[in-house]
Amino acid sequence: MEFTFEVRESDLMGRIGRLRVGGKALDTPCLLPVIHPVNQLVTTQELELMGFKGLMTNSYIILSRRRDEALKEGIHRMLQYEGVFMTDSGGYQVLEYGDIEVGYRRVASFQESIGSELSVTLDKPTGFSASEKYARSSMEYSLKNAITTINEYGQGKTVWVGPIQGGLFPLLLSKSASSLVKAGFEFLALGSPVEVMKNYKFPDLLSMVATTRRAIPYSVPLHLFGAGHPLTMALAVALGCDTFDSASYMLFAKDGRFMTEHGVSRLEAMKFLPCSCPICANTTVAGLLELDFTERTRSLALHNLYLLRKEIEVCREAIAEGRLWDLVQEKAIVHPRLFDAFKRLSKAIDLLLDGTPLLKDKGLFVRDRRDLARPELARASGRLKQSVMRSSNSAVLVISEVPLPLSKTRLQDHKLPSECDFYRLHPTLGPYPAELEFVYPFTQTVASSGACGKAQTAAAQKQLRNWGYSEVLLVNVDVDRRNSIAEPRSRQRPKGSSPSPPSSLAPPRLPRPP
Amino acid sequence: MEFTFEVRESDLMGRIGRLRVGGKALDTPCLLPVIHPVNQLVTTQELELMGFKGLMTNSYIILSRRRDEALKEGIHRMLQYEGVFMTDSGGYQVLEYGDIEVGYRRVASFQESIGSELSVTLDKPTGFSASEKYARSSMEYSLKNAITTINEYGQGKTVWVGPIQGGLFPLLLSKSASSLVKAGFEFLALGSPVEVMKNYKFPDLLSMVATTRRAIPYSVPLHLFGAGHPLTMALAVALGCDTFDSASYMLFAKDGRFMTEHGVSRLEAMKFLPCSCPICANTTVAGLLELDFTERTRSLALHNLYLLRKEIEVCREAIAEGRLWDLVQEKAIVHPRLFDAFKRLSKAIDLLLDGTPLLKDKGLFVRDRRDLARPELARASGRLKQSVMRSSNSAVLVISEVPLPLSKTRLQDHKLPSECDFYRLHPTLGPYPAELEFVYPFTQTVASSGACGKAQTAAAQKQLRNWGYSEVLLVNVDVDRRNSIAEPRSRQRPKGSSPSPPSSLAPPRLPRPP
Repeated sequence: MEFTFEVRESDLMGRIGRLRVGGKALDTPCLLPVIHPVNQLVTTQELELMGFKGLMTNSYIILSRRRDEALKEGIHRMLQYEGVFMTDSGGYQVLEYGDIEVGYRRVASFQESIGSELSVTLDKPTGFSASEKYARSSMEYSLKNAITTINEYGQGKTVWVGPIQGGLFPLLLSKSASSLVKAGFEFLALGSPVEVMKNYKFPDLLSMVATTRRAIPYSVPLHLFGAGHPLTMALAVALGCDTFDSASYMLFAKDGRFMTEHGVSRLEAMKFLPCSCPICANTTVAGLLELDFTERTRSLALHNLYLLRKEIEVCREAIAEGRLWDLVQEKAIVHPRLFDAFKRLSKAIDLLLDGTPLLKDKGLFVRDRRDLARPELARASGRLKQSVMRSSNSAVLVISEVPLPLSKTRLQDHKLPSECDFYRLHPTLGPYPAELEFVYPFTQTVASSGACGKAQTAAAQKQLRNWGYSEVLLVNVDVDRRNSIAEPRSRQRPKGSSPSPPSSLAPPRLPRPP
Repeated sequence: MEFTFEVRESDLMGRIGRLRVGGKALDTPCLLPVIHPVNQLVTTQELELMGFKGLMTNSYIILSRRRDEALKEGIHRMLQYEGVFMTDSGGYQVLEYGDIEVGYRRVASFQESIGSELSVTLDKPTGFSASEKYARSSMEYSLKNAITTINEYGQGKTVWVGPIQGGLFPLLLSKSASSLVKAGFEFLALGSPVEVMKNYKFPDLLSMVATTRRAIPYSVPLHLFGAGHPLTMALAVALGCDTFDSASYMLFAKDGRFMTEHGVSRLEAMKFLPCSCPICANTTVAGLLELDFTERTRSLALHNLYLLRKEIEVCREAIAEGRLWDLVQEKAIVHPRLFDAFKRLSKAIDLLLDGTPLLKDKGLFVRDRRDLARPELARASGRLKQSVMRSSNSAVLVISEVPLPLSKTRLQDHKLPSECDFYRLHPTLGPYPAELEFVYPFTQTVASSGACGKAQTAAAQKQLRNWGYSEVLLVNVDVDRRNSIAEPRSRQRPKGSSPSPPSSLAPPRLPRPP
């Protein structure tokens, strides 16, 4: 079956892509709502109308409970849905029910026969609190099934999705992921993050996804099993997860819980519905509570789906606008544990740099020192260090607000020597050659006042020392910053005095073009 | 006309209230969409269906263009809306068109005659870049009109809303606000924040609102003119603004702009609609762009209204849940200039403490040192300093994870003396007496790991010194923290050794009950 994945735009490791399978298309990032093959309160038609182009369902449950029908009609006709189906192998259920008759062959043949487009090979979920021994054995079992399946069946009738297991053990995750790619899998799915998320172990989620992403090529799409939570979606997208499935909308609904941008609340504990979706626009908390269980559950499920649908669109638009870092931060600020994960995002800078464009249309926001880890700034800082070198002894001008180059008249106004090197001052990167003035992201940075004071000043001082200028003259730099920067071995010009001539007038070595 | 304002719940200076006027009710915080009396693309029926219980319109424009009709039918029948009307005086237009025939009397009589529930007396907006001289004169002009109007007309037929002018000058704002209260105004409206917001001067917005709020009683509701922006609403609510009006939904729509939770985007520059409102759930960017100007403007205006409606509900629910501080921070992180304002929120701690309940149902989130300024923690810290004093010389136990009191067996396990003072360790407040263990917010704090490391450690060290314990024994404190806390004049117990007996076994002085 035809399978392609095309990345159209990217930011951090997040990608807007198009996944084509069997003549159908999924735009990514993408959420596949999980539907129950027997007992489904929200219909597939409703899901289609809401814009969901793909669904996830469980091949083992179909096999156990609607086998003949599915074989006769195929999954699409049986479940009345023409979009893309991904079928989970049901490895979890097989394990739970101890159904030893179901081996990888039975699962694979069935998935092929019912016409699923994306079929996960029979796996054994590692789980969250697994010992390394169990993690290894479940990973190896899943890997072996996967490789045997793809080799025996080929990809003529369905596209096999390779399940990555290994729990929290990085070496196991890496081995699992890279072996699957080597075996020919074009689409991988990372297992077991649900428990990690339920336990608020968001830094572990970050490590799991980053480890996996490092082990596979940029062009291979990655599915994250069961990660339909409004808080973590942006983080997972930023680390390179392309698709998600989730039954959360329904599980939460059955438990009377209402999703919001900042988490999940118990409907009974709420007073207002902070949402304008088609459900919430026409009801109230009291209105929902008056409904019978089934209708309330349906309403909550529909609301939850509208919320998740929006969160996916928010991620897509953030990638398109180049503000995915900002979105991840906006989400992270919601919960201290998620903030812990955000603080560790710089450890995945290798991945983030891969997907972040060299140029962006919009201003770059800096709130505090944590934003110094933004890939745009990390990249600019690296280039500055690599490219700007000089051995002359001429004076430096660090100029903050005056546009450059200065006219002769302005030079005279400021009583500057007619030849000297010009620099501007970046709020976080420190001084940079005036020639870079309009190169992204130097003047495009919008920083919170005093956000990076000390770190920035220290960096500037170090740079000035390293660049070996004998004299540093500061013009139009705001007063606070002047006082701190002038310190190391420069001097501030007394008002009205004329500068001592620079000891060398050699022009600065221009930075290499970016 | 009857007027009452009842505060039902509060958090920071934000209030969920009910404002009753002339037999009608507005639940606050509340947005009054501005409608144009002649040219209105979104109908008043549509606004009513969306749940807006009050509208703002301009009495001067009605006076100029639909005078006879308004006098004959009254404003409600003419504009086909039965909710609350607030009418602006049109001071801005009077000024702009130089219509010197319109004095405070003409405006006031007209507002009374057409049956407006809330009528702003004729004012002269100060504007944003006004000199102090102009600010003073415009404030005094507005104040004089206001006082004369309420004295001459009384509040029989309409409730007069007192316009506060004075621009960015705190003394003028204070004088304006307090004089209006003294003159009998029960509802005030703060002028001219639009330009402040357009210029991203969010810290100035904070100062203006805080200054005003300090000058008037807690029970007086405050309207903020023209502040319908999704980014600033939460901040304004947190500082005690109860109602807003805004034409922004329509002005942005006419300019092809789409509101989101994090700002306003040009539709043409967007690829996805990050929203699930009834408009966005059924269209796409391309779909909106295909519409003719009028239909596109209407769709954008409706979307913008759904977004603002949601933002108001988000503020209300955040007050009800006691997470308004968190919401303000979530919004502030979006833009560095708004973050500047958030960093200054602690300067209004007097106001924030006023409205923050002593007890909350939910965990208290701490991400980094900025959260130390939360009123809940500021209050707890103050109480701790006031209440916990002792002069004995017994040993202190600082215990982080073990629930207290320790059983005899546990004491022996840890080789502790049988009598000593017990403390627990709060991630940001430092050590606190075990007796406070279940008092909010001590054990209810959820902190990001290492978020407050240095500040917290410094505070703990100071406290330990001040409390005069001769010996500090640390049990079950996580290792990082133990190393830093143990430093000043305590010692860590070598593993397996028995502690030296404390020099005094006097019980600690219990803190005063909260």
